[in-house]
Amino acid sequence: MAKGRSTIAEIAAEVGVSAPTVSKVLNGRPDVSEATRLRIEAALSAHEYRKPVATRADGARTTGPRLLDVVFHESDNLWALEIISGVERVAGPARIGVVLSELGGSHRPTQEWIDDVMARRPLGVLLVLSDLDPTQRHQLSSRSIPFVVLDTQGKPPTDVPTVGSNNWNGGLVATQHLLDLGHTRIAVVMGPADVLCSRARVDGFRSAHDSAGVPWHPAMVRWGGFDAASGYQHALDLLSRPDRPTAIFAGSDYIAFGIARAARECGLRIPDDLSLVGYDNLPITEWLNPPLTTVNQPLREMGGLAARMLIASADGQPPTSMRMDLMTELVIRESTAAPATI
Amino acid sequence: MAKGRSTIAEIAAEVGVSAPTVSKVLNGRPDVSEATRLRIEAALSAHEYRKPVATRADGARTTGPRLLDVVFHESDNLWALEIISGVERVAGPARIGVVLSELGGSHRPTQEWIDDVMARRPLGVLLVLSDLDPTQRHQLSSRSIPFVVLDTQGKPPTDVPTVGSNNWNGGLVATQHLLDLGHTRIAVVMGPADVLCSRARVDGFRSAHDSAGVPWHPAMVRWGGFDAASGYQHALDLLSRPDRPTAIFAGSDYIAFGIARAARECGLRIPDDLSLVGYDNLPITEWLNPPLTTVNQPLREMGGLAARMLIASADGQPPTSMRMDLMTELVIRESTAAPATI
Repeated sequence: MAKGRSTIAEIAAEVGVSAPTVSKVLNGRPDVSEATRLRIEAALSAHEYRKPVATRADGARTTGPRLLDVVFHESDNLWALEIISGVERVAGPARIGVVLSELGGSHRPTQEWIDDVMARRPLGVLLVLSDLDPTQRHQLSSRSIPFVVLDTQGKPPTDVPTVGSNNWNGGLVATQHLLDLGHTRIAVVMGPADVLCSRARVDGFRSAHDSAGVPWHPAMVRWGGFDAASGYQHALDLLSRPDRPTAIFAGSDYIAFGIARAARECGLRIPDDLSLVGYDNLPITEWLNPPLTTVNQPLREMGGLAARMLIASADGQPPTSMRMDLMTELVIRESTAAPATI
Repeated sequence: MAKGRSTIAEIAAEVGVSAPTVSKVLNGRPDVSEATRLRIEAALSAHEYRKPVATRADGARTTGPRLLDVVFHESDNLWALEIISGVERVAGPARIGVVLSELGGSHRPTQEWIDDVMARRPLGVLLVLSDLDPTQRHQLSSRSIPFVVLDTQGKPPTDVPTVGSNNWNGGLVATQHLLDLGHTRIAVVMGPADVLCSRARVDGFRSAHDSAGVPWHPAMVRWGGFDAASGYQHALDLLSRPDRPTAIFAGSDYIAFGIARAARECGLRIPDDLSLVGYDNLPITEWLNPPLTTVNQPLREMGGLAARMLIASADGQPPTSMRMDLMTELVIRESTAAPATI
């Protein structure tokens, strides 16, 4: 049998089961024994089976509800809400239901979740800060369920369509702004060091220093979580040093919230005693006291673009590009100023 | 035919169509003419038809993906995210997909949306700050799709199960706290006057004054949107008055964000020159500068309770009560203090 062109009947004959049993496995039905299911999955995988997509002349699937699955590793922050809004704005008018799942902090979905997705047969799956293992990827491919990774985090294989943003540029423009104001002791409080978007932002921070001929100090580069508590802890330490920084670049707006609280507890005013730049440009940042200078990450646009890619893919159109990065830019508000000592 | 006990065959005979045509309408299939569909809907409604729910011994539906529909009038604020999190925490472990829809600011779903819901046959529908008209309600009932209104806003009919919170108590405890601190010129900046939760919170504000024997002034009671911009505009006006308030109770945390910005622009410090109480206790409020005293509205618990009610209802269990109100309580942080003049 030629790869990718096998039929259900051929797969069934090879495994020694009936064609309806193969169909049941393809449709995520529970009434097949685990041993049989595994043998069928193995044959599907070996033959790179692709389920034909039943479409009308206008490209829409003929049966079942039109759904898009969106998966977050965790969804309880504002960042996730921006992406959901972006997906909704594309899916809503197209009358496509958006199914939301949360992995409770894990970056890889469980097999149960994959089974449920196969059972509900969405038009596509959007993975946010999460990824599939090769077996899971094949399971979706064999059901002709396209997926896109919305990534600011890892580096997915090059054959998975990905939407991201230019993290290195974000780190660069944030730091250049602080250097232009005259700061020379600038700290960066970033997310996890093992996450690519963190590294790209810190590399932008370093490059801005190098271009300006200003040395940066390893003690001023901090890694942690993307949450407020992490920003708070690092800032308490940084701001109690004799050579405390006059400006901090935060790897997320949440980190910036924590830094602002630490500054206040240390009796330092923003921006008079400490300049602060965030990252993400969450809508709430313009209402903070003071309004936060931050790097705009176009999260809604990223969610919308990923949704459009999935809908196009379900209609049989291959992606224009496997990796699309949207632009980041600095939004200057009132949390940054020249250092007091100049 | 007895009401509520008619069969599809009986409905079909009465309308003069085939039984499969009635089934198509019940299942939201598009291939029935509009005129026929309306005649069938009318007959279903007249006979109070209820579609039997196919269940396994364990109560789970036997066919199709297990979904819960959650509908927001608009979902792009933190408040919505808390409710979604609450629903996810119940639905996720039960392997139920959560389908999110946004009505773009409208408080009533379109017929298209109802058609899509009938086509995807969820276990139930949770309406957040939105409601159905009687026809739409019947359309869901006739498909045995239960619905719950998560309400802090209107007053749904008493035969619709509703989850809310004690808004009057929220207004009372917020205002009592300010009176206890010694404030006697307290303003309230609330959401829309035509929304019941707004009225209940303002009534709590008035009752606290009455109990303490402190008069409240009509000019100090302001109505508007639940957003930051509304809080900002009202506060600019209130704080420029010769008899400016020494404390403000905000009808939402977003309103409080706007008031804080206005205070800052007027050169007033919080809490030294102005005490401020918010409403909702969004997670971000503890990171504000200063951390916000606010009324905790248990949004996650409300979302989770509504989800559990829907799942129970899909399993054939009638609701324990048609209206469940969860408790509100004051969370005291650093944005409130005694007035400077005392």
